[in-house]
Amino acid sequence: MKFITFLTTEDEQKWGVVHEEMIVDGTGSGYQRLLDVIQGGDEALSTVEQWITSGEGHTYALKEVQVLPPIIPPKNVICVGKNYAEHALEMSHQVPGAIPEYPVFFTKPHTALTGHGTYIESYPHITTELDYEGELAVIIGKEGKNIPAAEAMDYVFGYSILNDVTARDLQRRHKQFFKGKSLDTFAPFGPVIAHKSLIPDPQKLTIQTFVNGEERQHGSTQDMIFSVAQLIESLSAGMTLEAGDIIATGTPSGVGKGFNPPKLLKAGDEVSITIEPIGTLSNRVR
Amino acid sequence: MKFITFLTTEDEQKWGVVHEEMIVDGTGSGYQRLLDVIQGGDEALSTVEQWITSGEGHTYALKEVQVLPPIIPPKNVICVGKNYAEHALEMSHQVPGAIPEYPVFFTKPHTALTGHGTYIESYPHITTELDYEGELAVIIGKEGKNIPAAEAMDYVFGYSILNDVTARDLQRRHKQFFKGKSLDTFAPFGPVIAHKSLIPDPQKLTIQTFVNGEERQHGSTQDMIFSVAQLIESLSAGMTLEAGDIIATGTPSGVGKGFNPPKLLKAGDEVSITIEPIGTLSNRVR
Repeated sequence: MKFITFLTTEDEQKWGVVHEEMIVDGTGSGYQRLLDVIQGGDEALSTVEQWITSGEGHTYALKEVQVLPPIIPPKNVICVGKNYAEHALEMSHQVPGAIPEYPVFFTKPHTALTGHGTYIESYPHITTELDYEGELAVIIGKEGKNIPAAEAMDYVFGYSILNDVTARDLQRRHKQFFKGKSLDTFAPFGPVIAHKSLIPDPQKLTIQTFVNGEERQHGSTQDMIFSVAQLIESLSAGMTLEAGDIIATGTPSGVGKGFNPPKLLKAGDEVSITIEPIGTLSNRVR
Repeated sequence: MKFITFLTTEDEQKWGVVHEEMIVDGTGSGYQRLLDVIQGGDEALSTVEQWITSGEGHTYALKEVQVLPPIIPPKNVICVGKNYAEHALEMSHQVPGAIPEYPVFFTKPHTALTGHGTYIESYPHITTELDYEGELAVIIGKEGKNIPAAEAMDYVFGYSILNDVTARDLQRRHKQFFKGKSLDTFAPFGPVIAHKSLIPDPQKLTIQTFVNGEERQHGSTQDMIFSVAQLIESLSAGMTLEAGDIIATGTPSGVGKGFNPPKLLKAGDEVSITIEPIGTLSNRVR
Protein backbone atom coordinates (compact mmCIF):
# COMPACT_ATOMS: atom_id res chain seq x y z
CA MET A 1 0.00 0.00 0.00
CA LYS A 2 1.00 3.60 -0.58
CA PHE A 3 -0.16 6.03 2.08
CA ILE A 4 -0.90 9.71 1.63
CA THR A 5 -2.01 12.61 3.87
CA PHE A 6 -4.01 15.36 2.20
CA LEU A 7 -6.47 18.23 2.45
CA THR A 8 -9.83 17.82 0.78
CA THR A 9 -11.38 20.66 -1.20
CA GLU A 10 -13.35 21.35 2.02
CA ASP A 11 -10.02 21.80 3.88
CA GLU A 12 -10.46 18.64 5.90
CA GLN A 13 -7.23 16.84 6.75
CA LYS A 14 -7.44 13.17 5.77
CA TRP A 15 -5.17 10.27 5.05
CA GLY A 16 -5.72 7.49 2.61
CA VAL A 17 -4.38 4.75 0.41
CA VAL A 18 -3.37 5.64 -3.15
CA HIS A 19 -4.21 3.40 -6.09
CA GLU A 20 -3.30 4.80 -9.49
CA GLU A 21 -4.98 8.24 -9.67
CA MET A 22 -7.41 7.65 -6.78
CA ILE A 23 -7.22 7.89 -3.00
CA VAL A 24 -9.40 5.79 -0.71
CA ASP A 25 -10.13 7.70 2.52
CA GLY A 26 -8.53 5.74 5.37
CA THR A 27 -10.08 7.53 8.33
CA GLY A 28 -13.10 5.22 8.28
CA SER A 29 -10.81 2.39 9.41
CA GLY A 30 -10.78 3.92 12.88
CA TYR A 31 -7.30 5.39 12.58
CA GLN A 32 -7.56 9.16 12.42
CA ARG A 33 -4.04 9.92 11.24
CA LEU A 34 -1.42 8.06 9.21
CA LEU A 35 0.89 8.36 12.24
CA ASP A 36 -1.66 6.31 14.22
CA VAL A 37 -1.45 3.57 11.57
CA ILE A 38 2.36 3.59 11.72
CA GLN A 39 2.30 3.44 15.52
CA GLY A 40 -0.37 0.73 15.41
CA GLY A 41 1.95 -1.85 13.87
CA ASP A 42 0.79 -5.03 12.10
CA GLU A 43 -2.67 -4.91 13.68
CA ALA A 44 -3.31 -1.44 12.28
CA LEU A 45 -2.04 -2.47 8.88
CA SER A 46 -4.36 -5.44 8.65
CA THR A 47 -7.33 -3.36 9.85
CA VAL A 48 -6.56 -0.79 7.16
CA GLU A 49 -6.24 -3.49 4.49
CA GLN A 50 -9.66 -4.87 5.40
CA TRP A 51 -11.14 -1.38 5.34
CA ILE A 52 -9.73 -0.64 1.91
CA THR A 53 -10.88 -4.03 0.56
CA SER A 54 -14.40 -3.46 1.92
CA GLY A 55 -14.89 -0.71 -0.66
CA GLU A 56 -16.74 1.43 1.90
CA GLY A 57 -14.18 4.24 1.91
CA HIS A 58 -14.93 7.50 0.15
CA THR A 59 -12.67 8.07 -2.84
CA TYR A 60 -10.93 11.24 -3.99
CA ALA A 61 -9.18 11.98 -7.24
CA LEU A 62 -5.49 12.54 -6.52
CA LYS A 63 -5.44 15.62 -8.72
CA GLU A 64 -8.20 17.39 -6.76
CA VAL A 65 -6.62 17.23 -3.28
CA GLN A 66 -3.76 19.18 -1.72
CA VAL A 67 -1.00 16.76 -0.76
CA LEU A 68 0.47 17.28 2.74
CA PRO A 69 3.64 15.86 4.29
CA PRO A 70 2.64 12.26 5.12
CA ILE A 71 3.33 12.40 8.88
CA ILE A 72 1.35 14.98 10.85
CA PRO A 73 2.21 15.92 13.55
CA PRO A 74 5.80 15.42 12.48
CA LYS A 75 8.40 13.43 14.37
CA ASN A 76 12.20 13.70 14.09
CA VAL A 77 13.74 14.46 10.70
CA ILE A 78 17.26 13.01 10.80
CA CYS A 79 19.48 13.37 7.76
CA VAL A 80 22.69 11.74 6.63
CA GLY A 81 25.50 13.71 5.02
CA LYS A 82 28.00 12.39 2.47
CA ASN A 83 26.53 8.90 2.15
CA TYR A 84 27.44 8.45 -1.52
CA ALA A 85 31.15 8.48 -2.42
CA GLU A 86 30.74 10.48 -5.65
CA HIS A 87 28.72 13.12 -3.82
CA ALA A 88 31.31 13.34 -1.00
CA LEU A 89 33.93 14.00 -3.69
CA GLU A 90 31.91 16.57 -5.65
CA MET A 91 31.39 18.49 -2.37
CA SER A 92 34.97 18.28 -1.10
CA HIS A 93 35.55 21.99 -1.82
CA GLN A 94 32.46 22.81 0.28
CA VAL A 95 32.68 20.27 3.11
CA PRO A 96 36.31 19.32 3.75
CA GLY A 97 37.24 15.75 4.56
CA ALA A 98 37.30 12.50 2.65
CA ILE A 99 34.69 9.78 2.47
CA PRO A 100 33.34 9.31 6.01
CA GLU A 101 34.29 6.31 8.13
CA TYR A 102 31.18 6.75 10.30
CA PRO A 103 27.76 8.06 9.28
CA VAL A 104 27.39 11.85 9.41
CA PHE A 105 24.06 12.67 11.07
CA PHE A 106 22.32 16.03 11.40
CA THR A 107 18.68 17.13 11.66
CA LYS A 108 16.09 19.42 10.13
CA PRO A 109 13.36 21.03 12.27
CA HIS A 110 9.74 20.01 11.65
CA THR A 111 9.04 23.59 10.55
CA ALA A 112 11.05 22.83 7.38
CA LEU A 113 8.64 20.10 6.22
CA THR A 114 6.35 20.82 3.30
CA GLY A 115 4.25 18.67 1.00
CA HIS A 116 4.41 17.65 -2.65
CA GLY A 117 3.28 20.43 -4.96
CA THR A 118 4.03 23.28 -2.53
CA TYR A 119 6.66 25.98 -2.91
CA ILE A 120 10.27 25.98 -1.77
CA GLU A 121 10.93 29.53 -0.56
CA SER A 122 14.16 30.99 -1.99
CA TYR A 123 15.00 33.62 0.71
CA PRO A 124 17.07 35.83 -1.62
CA HIS A 125 18.00 38.14 1.30
CA ILE A 126 19.41 35.22 3.30
CA THR A 127 21.04 32.95 0.70
CA THR A 128 22.38 33.15 -2.84
CA GLU A 129 23.25 29.44 -3.05
CA LEU A 130 20.01 27.47 -2.94
CA ASP A 131 20.48 23.80 -3.80
CA TYR A 132 18.54 20.53 -3.99
CA GLU A 133 19.38 17.03 -2.73
CA GLY A 134 17.13 14.13 -3.76
CA GLU A 135 17.05 11.43 -1.09
CA LEU A 136 15.41 8.15 -0.11
CA ALA A 137 13.62 8.65 3.23
CA VAL A 138 13.12 5.74 5.61
CA ILE A 139 10.11 5.84 7.95
CA ILE A 140 10.60 4.12 11.29
CA GLY A 141 7.72 1.79 12.21
CA LYS A 142 8.28 1.00 15.87
CA GLU A 143 10.26 2.24 18.81
CA GLY A 144 13.75 0.82 19.19
CA LYS A 145 17.21 1.43 20.62
CA ASN A 146 20.51 -0.38 20.02
CA ILE A 147 19.03 -2.06 16.94
CA PRO A 148 21.47 -4.47 15.23
CA ALA A 149 21.72 -4.04 11.43
CA ALA A 150 20.46 -7.61 10.99
CA GLU A 151 17.15 -6.68 12.69
CA ALA A 152 16.87 -3.14 11.33
CA MET A 153 14.26 -3.94 8.69
CA ASP A 154 11.82 -5.01 11.44
CA TYR A 155 11.85 -1.36 12.56
CA VAL A 156 11.08 0.10 9.14
CA PHE A 157 7.49 1.00 8.19
CA GLY A 158 8.18 2.16 4.67
CA TYR A 159 9.91 4.57 2.34
CA SER A 160 9.36 8.01 0.93
CA ILE A 161 11.27 10.85 -0.78
CA LEU A 162 12.80 13.90 0.86
CA ASN A 163 14.41 16.89 -0.81
CA ASP A 164 17.19 18.01 1.55
CA VAL A 165 17.09 21.62 0.33
CA THR A 166 20.26 23.43 1.37
CA ALA A 167 21.56 26.99 1.40
CA ARG A 168 25.21 26.21 0.61
CA ASP A 169 26.50 29.59 1.83
CA LEU A 170 24.79 29.19 5.22
CA GLN A 171 25.94 25.56 5.45
CA ARG A 172 29.55 26.76 4.99
CA ARG A 173 29.39 29.84 7.25
CA HIS A 174 27.69 28.21 10.21
CA LYS A 175 30.02 25.15 10.13
CA GLN A 176 27.47 22.64 11.42
CA PHE A 177 24.97 21.76 8.66
CA PHE A 178 21.78 22.59 10.62
CA LYS A 179 21.38 26.30 9.82
CA GLY A 180 21.78 25.96 6.05
CA LYS A 181 19.24 23.13 5.98
CA SER A 182 16.67 24.37 8.49
CA LEU A 183 14.79 27.18 6.77
CA ASP A 184 11.01 26.87 6.46
CA THR A 185 10.11 24.74 3.36
CA PHE A 186 13.63 23.25 3.13
CA ALA A 187 12.28 19.71 3.59
CA PRO A 188 9.77 18.79 0.86
CA PHE A 189 8.61 15.29 1.82
CA GLY A 190 6.35 12.78 0.10
CA PRO A 191 4.15 12.53 -1.87
CA VAL A 192 3.45 9.13 -0.30
CA ILE A 193 4.93 6.57 2.05
CA ALA A 194 5.28 3.23 0.25
CA HIS A 195 4.94 0.35 2.69
CA LYS A 196 8.12 -1.74 2.89
CA SER A 197 6.30 -4.74 1.36
CA LEU A 198 6.51 -2.85 -1.96
CA ILE A 199 10.30 -2.47 -1.67
CA PRO A 200 11.94 -5.79 -0.82
CA ASP A 201 15.45 -4.32 -1.11
CA PRO A 202 15.97 -0.61 -0.37
CA GLN A 203 19.52 -0.84 -1.74
CA LYS A 204 18.27 -1.40 -5.30
CA LEU A 205 16.42 1.84 -5.99
CA THR A 206 17.17 4.47 -8.62
CA ILE A 207 17.08 8.12 -7.51
CA GLN A 208 16.61 10.74 -10.21
CA THR A 209 16.40 14.48 -9.69
CA PHE A 210 15.20 16.77 -12.46
CA VAL A 211 15.33 20.57 -12.51
CA ASN A 212 12.97 21.99 -15.11
CA GLY A 213 13.03 18.58 -16.76
CA GLU A 214 16.84 18.33 -16.98
CA GLU A 215 18.18 15.25 -15.21
CA ARG A 216 20.72 16.38 -12.60
CA GLN A 217 21.01 13.35 -10.32
CA HIS A 218 20.86 9.73 -11.42
CA GLY A 219 22.06 7.46 -8.63
CA SER A 220 21.39 4.08 -7.15
CA THR A 221 20.89 3.32 -3.47
CA GLN A 222 23.31 0.42 -3.97
CA ASP A 223 26.05 3.06 -3.91
CA MET A 224 25.26 4.20 -0.36
CA ILE A 225 28.38 4.09 1.83
CA PHE A 226 26.20 3.08 4.80
CA SER A 227 23.13 0.98 3.98
CA VAL A 228 19.70 1.66 5.47
CA ALA A 229 20.31 -1.16 7.97
CA GLN A 230 23.74 0.19 8.95
CA LEU A 231 22.34 3.72 9.38
CA ILE A 232 19.62 2.43 11.71
CA GLU A 233 22.18 0.47 13.74
CA SER A 234 24.49 3.47 14.08
CA LEU A 235 21.76 6.03 14.77
CA SER A 236 19.94 3.89 17.35
CA ALA A 237 23.09 3.14 19.35
CA GLY A 238 22.15 4.72 22.68
CA MET A 239 19.34 6.73 21.09
CA THR A 240 15.68 5.73 20.97
CA LEU A 241 14.08 5.86 17.52
CA GLU A 242 10.30 6.29 17.50
CA ALA A 243 7.54 5.27 15.10
CA GLY A 244 7.19 8.04 12.52
CA ASP A 245 10.79 9.25 12.72
CA ILE A 246 12.19 10.04 9.28
CA ILE A 247 15.74 9.21 8.21
CA ALA A 248 16.81 10.90 4.96
CA THR A 249 19.61 8.65 3.77
CA GLY A 250 21.84 11.04 1.84
CA THR A 251 22.03 12.23 -1.74
CA PRO A 252 23.91 10.89 -4.76
CA SER A 253 26.17 13.11 -6.89
CA GLY A 254 24.73 15.78 -9.16
CA VAL A 255 23.71 18.51 -6.72
CA GLY A 256 23.79 22.03 -8.11
CA LYS A 257 26.92 23.01 -6.20
CA GLY A 258 28.73 19.99 -7.66
CA PHE A 259 28.65 21.40 -11.22
CA ASN A 260 31.27 23.77 -12.58
CA PRO A 261 29.91 26.37 -12.84
CA PRO A 262 27.29 25.56 -10.17
CA LYS A 263 23.68 24.98 -11.24
CA LEU A 264 21.89 26.45 -8.24
CA LEU A 265 18.15 26.95 -7.84
CA LYS A 266 16.33 30.19 -8.60
CA ALA A 267 12.74 31.35 -8.33
CA GLY A 268 10.56 29.60 -10.90
CA ASP A 269 12.58 26.38 -11.05
CA GLU A 270 10.75 23.10 -10.61
CA VAL A 271 12.57 20.31 -8.76
CA SER A 272 11.25 16.76 -9.22
CA ILE A 273 12.69 13.72 -7.50
CA THR A 274 11.67 10.28 -8.72
CA ILE A 275 12.25 7.02 -6.84
CA GLU A 276 10.15 4.13 -8.16
CA PRO A 277 7.98 2.52 -6.92
CA ILE A 278 7.43 5.42 -4.49
CA GLY A 279 6.72 8.05 -7.14
CA THR A 280 7.74 11.64 -7.79
CA LEU A 281 8.09 14.56 -5.35
CA SER A 282 7.79 17.91 -7.18
CA ASN A 283 8.11 21.44 -5.80
CA ARG A 284 8.56 24.79 -7.43
CA VAL A 285 10.94 27.46 -6.09
CA ARG A 286 9.58 30.94 -5.47
CA MET B 1 7.98 33.41 38.91
CA LYS B 2 9.88 30.15 38.59
CA PHE B 3 8.00 27.35 36.86
CA ILE B 4 8.45 23.63 37.40
CA THR B 5 6.96 20.42 35.98
CA PHE B 6 6.87 17.42 38.28
CA LEU B 7 5.38 14.07 39.25
CA THR B 8 3.52 13.86 42.54
CA THR B 9 3.99 10.89 44.87
CA GLU B 10 0.78 9.56 43.23
CA ASP B 11 2.51 9.73 39.81
CA GLU B 12 0.35 12.58 38.60
CA GLN B 13 2.08 14.98 36.20
CA LYS B 14 1.65 18.58 37.38
CA TRP B 15 3.25 21.94 36.89
CA GLY B 16 3.56 24.69 39.42
CA VAL B 17 5.26 27.80 40.67
CA VAL B 18 8.23 27.39 43.01
CA HIS B 19 8.70 29.59 46.06
CA GLU B 20 11.63 28.64 48.27
CA GLU B 21 11.13 24.96 49.12
CA MET B 22 7.46 24.82 48.14
CA ILE B 23 5.56 24.36 44.88
CA VAL B 24 2.08 25.77 44.34
CA ASP B 25 0.11 23.54 41.92
CA GLY B 26 -0.62 25.60 38.81
CA THR B 27 -3.10 23.30 37.11
CA GLY B 28 -6.01 24.92 39.00
CA SER B 29 -5.40 28.09 36.98
CA GLY B 30 -6.99 26.36 33.98
CA TYR B 31 -3.71 25.72 32.18
CA GLN B 32 -3.01 21.99 32.21
CA ARG B 33 0.64 22.11 31.17
CA LEU B 34 3.46 24.62 31.53
CA LEU B 35 3.69 24.63 27.71
CA ASP B 36 0.10 25.94 27.63
CA VAL B 37 1.16 28.83 29.88
CA ILE B 38 4.13 29.62 27.65
CA GLN B 39 1.95 29.48 24.54
CA GLY B 40 -0.73 31.56 26.28
CA GLY B 41 1.43 34.67 26.45
CA ASP B 42 0.78 37.64 28.76
CA GLU B 43 -2.83 36.68 29.37
CA ALA B 44 -1.82 33.26 30.66
CA LEU B 45 0.87 34.77 32.83
CA SER B 46 -1.52 37.18 34.50
CA THR B 47 -4.13 34.42 35.03
CA VAL B 48 -1.45 32.27 36.68
CA GLU B 49 -0.29 35.14 38.88
CA GLN B 50 -3.85 35.69 40.10
CA TRP B 51 -4.26 31.99 40.76
CA ILE B 52 -1.04 31.79 42.79
CA THR B 53 -1.95 34.93 44.75
CA SER B 54 -5.41 33.52 45.55
CA GLY B 55 -3.78 30.93 47.80
CA GLU B 56 -6.21 28.27 46.54
CA GLY B 57 -3.55 26.08 44.92
CA HIS B 58 -2.47 22.86 46.59
CA THR B 59 1.15 23.00 47.77
CA TYR B 60 3.86 20.37 47.54
CA ALA B 61 7.24 20.23 49.22
CA LEU B 62 9.92 20.44 46.52
CA LYS B 63 11.87 17.59 48.11
CA GLU B 64 8.95 15.14 47.90
CA VAL B 65 8.25 15.40 44.16
CA GLN B 66 10.09 14.02 41.14
CA VAL B 67 11.25 16.90 38.97
CA LEU B 68 10.59 16.49 35.22
CA PRO B 69 11.96 18.45 32.26
CA PRO B 70 9.92 21.68 32.37
CA ILE B 71 8.41 21.44 28.88
CA ILE B 72 6.27 18.37 28.16
CA PRO B 73 5.66 17.46 25.39
CA PRO B 74 9.03 18.80 24.32
CA LYS B 75 9.65 21.18 21.44
CA ASN B 76 12.91 21.76 19.54
CA VAL B 77 16.20 21.59 21.43
CA ILE B 78 18.65 23.75 19.49
CA CYS B 79 22.21 24.09 20.76
CA VAL B 80 25.05 26.46 20.01
CA GLY B 81 28.65 25.24 19.66
CA LYS B 82 31.78 27.23 20.46
CA ASN B 83 30.02 30.35 21.78
CA TYR B 84 32.69 31.24 24.35
CA ALA B 85 36.17 32.05 23.03
CA GLU B 86 38.08 30.25 25.80
CA HIS B 87 36.01 27.12 25.23
CA ALA B 88 36.57 27.28 21.45
CA LEU B 89 40.30 27.39 22.16
CA GLU B 90 40.34 24.57 24.73
CA MET B 91 38.50 22.37 22.18
CA SER B 92 40.62 23.27 19.15
CA HIS B 93 42.30 19.82 19.18
CA GLN B 94 38.81 18.21 19.11
CA VAL B 95 36.89 20.55 16.81
CA PRO B 96 39.23 22.22 14.35
CA GLY B 97 38.76 25.85 13.36
CA ALA B 98 39.16 29.15 15.10
CA ILE B 99 36.57 31.25 16.90
CA PRO B 100 33.42 31.17 14.76
CA GLU B 101 32.33 34.16 12.68
CA TYR B 102 28.74 32.89 12.59
CA PRO B 103 26.83 30.94 15.24
CA VAL B 104 27.30 27.17 15.09
CA PHE B 105 23.88 25.53 15.52
CA PHE B 106 23.02 21.87 15.98
CA THR B 107 20.21 19.98 17.72
CA LYS B 108 19.48 17.30 20.26
CA PRO B 109 16.46 14.99 19.92
CA HIS B 110 13.66 15.23 22.52
CA THR B 111 14.50 11.67 23.58
CA ALA B 112 17.72 13.06 25.13
CA LEU B 113 15.83 15.27 27.60
CA THR B 114 15.77 14.28 31.25
CA GLY B 115 14.89 16.07 34.48
CA HIS B 116 16.84 17.35 37.47
CA GLY B 117 17.80 14.55 39.85
CA THR B 118 17.70 11.77 37.23
CA TYR B 119 20.61 9.74 35.90
CA ILE B 120 22.86 10.44 32.94
CA GLU B 121 23.48 7.04 31.32
CA SER B 122 27.18 6.42 30.62
CA TYR B 123 26.94 3.85 27.73
CA PRO B 124 30.37 2.30 28.38
CA HIS B 125 30.00 0.07 25.29
CA ILE B 126 29.38 3.07 23.04
CA THR B 127 31.64 5.82 24.42
CA THR B 128 34.72 6.16 26.61
CA GLU B 129 34.74 9.97 26.54
CA LEU B 130 31.64 11.18 28.38
CA ASP B 131 31.71 14.92 29.08
CA TYR B 132 29.55 17.69 30.55
CA GLU B 133 28.76 21.20 29.26
CA GLY B 134 26.90 23.61 31.55
CA GLU B 135 24.75 26.04 29.55
CA LEU B 136 22.18 28.81 29.87
CA ALA B 137 18.99 27.71 28.09
CA VAL B 138 16.63 30.29 26.57
CA ILE B 139 12.95 29.37 26.32
CA ILE B 140 11.10 30.93 23.39
CA GLY B 141 7.78 32.52 24.39
CA LYS B 142 6.04 33.16 21.10
CA GLU B 143 6.23 32.18 17.47
CA GLY B 144 8.50 34.30 15.33
CA LYS B 145 10.62 34.34 12.17
CA ASN B 146 13.22 36.84 10.94
CA ILE B 147 13.38 38.38 14.43
CA PRO B 148 15.77 41.37 14.65
CA ALA B 149 18.16 41.26 17.64
CA ALA B 150 16.62 44.49 18.94
CA GLU B 151 13.24 42.76 19.30
CA ALA B 152 14.52 39.35 20.35
CA MET B 153 13.73 39.74 24.05
CA ASP B 154 10.02 40.08 23.19
CA TYR B 155 10.20 36.46 22.00
CA VAL B 156 11.81 35.09 25.17
CA PHE B 157 9.65 33.50 27.89
CA GLY B 158 12.41 32.76 30.36
CA TYR B 159 15.62 30.94 31.15
CA SER B 160 16.72 27.56 32.39
CA ILE B 161 19.82 25.34 32.57
CA LEU B 162 20.79 22.59 30.14
CA ASN B 163 23.67 20.12 30.43
CA ASP B 164 24.85 19.49 26.86
CA VAL B 165 26.23 16.03 27.69
CA THR B 166 28.58 14.89 24.94
CA ALA B 167 30.38 11.69 23.95
CA ARG B 168 33.58 13.29 22.63
CA ASP B 169 34.67 10.20 20.67
CA LEU B 170 31.32 9.99 18.85
CA GLN B 171 31.32 13.75 18.25
CA ARG B 172 34.73 13.41 16.56
CA ARG B 173 34.02 10.24 14.56
CA HIS B 174 30.64 11.25 13.16
CA LYS B 175 31.90 14.75 12.14
CA GLN B 176 28.58 16.55 12.67
CA PHE B 177 27.92 17.04 16.41
CA PHE B 178 24.46 15.40 16.49
CA LYS B 179 25.37 11.75 17.13
CA GLY B 180 27.73 12.44 20.04
CA LYS B 181 25.13 14.64 21.71
CA SER B 182 21.94 12.72 20.98
CA LEU B 183 21.99 9.68 23.26
CA ASP B 184 19.06 9.19 25.65
CA THR B 185 19.60 11.27 28.86
CA PHE B 186 22.24 13.50 27.19
CA ALA B 187 20.13 16.63 27.79
CA PRO B 188 19.43 17.17 31.50
CA PHE B 189 17.20 20.26 31.59
CA GLY B 190 15.81 22.36 34.43
CA PRO B 191 15.07 22.22 37.32
CA VAL B 192 12.90 25.28 36.63
CA ILE B 193 12.23 27.94 34.04
CA ALA B 194 12.78 31.38 35.55
CA HIS B 195 10.54 33.94 33.90
CA LYS B 196 12.52 36.65 32.11
CA SER B 197 11.26 39.29 34.59
CA LEU B 198 13.69 37.73 37.10
CA ILE B 199 16.64 38.15 34.73
CA PRO B 200 16.76 41.69 33.34
CA ASP B 201 20.07 41.03 31.52
CA PRO B 202 20.86 37.47 30.36
CA GLN B 203 24.42 38.56 29.54
CA LYS B 204 25.29 39.09 33.23
CA LEU B 205 24.90 35.58 34.61
CA THR B 206 27.53 33.36 36.20
CA ILE B 207 27.63 29.70 35.08
CA GLN B 208 29.33 27.23 37.40
CA THR B 209 29.68 23.50 36.83
CA PHE B 210 30.76 21.20 39.64
CA VAL B 211 31.71 17.53 39.36
CA ASN B 212 31.56 15.81 42.73
CA GLY B 213 31.79 19.26 44.31
CA GLU B 214 34.91 20.34 42.37
CA GLU B 215 34.34 23.50 40.38
CA ARG B 216 35.18 22.78 36.72
CA GLN B 217 33.49 25.65 34.89
CA HIS B 218 33.19 29.22 36.10
CA GLY B 219 32.10 31.48 33.29
CA SER B 220 30.02 34.54 32.65
CA THR B 221 27.41 34.93 29.94
CA GLN B 222 28.99 38.33 29.21
CA ASP B 223 31.73 36.32 27.44
CA MET B 224 29.37 34.81 24.86
CA ILE B 225 30.63 35.45 21.33
CA PHE B 226 27.00 35.77 20.15
CA SER B 227 24.53 37.19 22.68
CA VAL B 228 21.11 35.68 23.30
CA ALA B 229 19.59 38.39 21.10
CA GLN B 230 22.09 37.76 18.28
CA LEU B 231 21.50 34.00 18.47
CA ILE B 232 17.73 34.50 18.14
CA GLU B 233 18.24 36.82 15.16
CA SER B 234 20.54 34.38 13.40
CA LEU B 235 18.53 31.25 14.17
CA SER B 236 15.18 32.77 13.20
CA ALA B 237 16.43 34.04 9.84
CA GLY B 238 14.17 32.08 7.49
CA MET B 239 13.23 29.61 10.26
CA THR B 240 10.15 29.81 12.45
CA LEU B 241 10.80 29.57 16.19
CA GLU B 242 7.86 28.34 18.27
CA ALA B 243 6.78 28.89 21.87
CA GLY B 244 8.54 26.30 24.01
CA ASP B 245 11.58 25.89 21.77
CA ILE B 246 14.79 25.65 23.78
CA ILE B 247 18.05 27.29 22.74
CA ALA B 248 21.08 26.10 24.72
CA THR B 249 23.51 28.98 24.30
CA GLY B 250 26.89 27.27 24.50
CA THR B 251 29.29 26.38 27.29
CA PRO B 252 32.20 28.30 28.83
CA SER B 253 35.68 26.77 29.19
CA GLY B 254 36.37 24.01 31.68
CA VAL B 255 34.78 20.96 30.05
CA GLY B 256 36.38 17.63 30.94
CA LYS B 257 38.03 17.24 27.53
CA GLY B 258 39.66 20.67 27.94
CA PHE B 259 41.88 19.51 30.84
CA ASN B 260 45.26 17.85 30.34
CA PRO B 261 44.86 15.04 31.16
CA PRO B 262 41.12 15.10 30.45
CA LYS B 263 38.69 14.97 33.38
CA LEU B 264 35.89 12.95 31.80
CA LEU B 265 32.77 11.61 33.51
CA LYS B 266 32.45 8.11 34.95
CA ALA B 267 29.65 6.19 36.64
CA GLY B 268 28.95 7.59 40.10
CA ASP B 269 29.97 11.19 39.30
CA GLU B 270 27.54 13.95 40.19
CA VAL B 271 27.36 16.94 37.82
CA SER B 272 25.78 20.14 39.17
CA ILE B 273 25.32 23.30 37.13
CA THR B 274 24.43 26.51 38.94
CA ILE B 275 23.14 29.68 37.28
CA GLU B 276 21.57 32.13 39.75
CA PRO B 277 18.79 33.15 40.04
CA ILE B 278 17.63 30.05 38.13
CA GLY B 279 19.09 27.50 40.55
CA THR B 280 21.06 24.26 40.27
CA LEU B 281 20.62 21.33 37.88
CA SER B 282 22.13 18.13 39.33
CA ASN B 283 22.39 14.67 37.78
CA ARG B 284 24.38 11.61 38.66
CA VAL B 285 26.12 9.43 36.05
CA ARG B 286 25.44 5.70 36.04
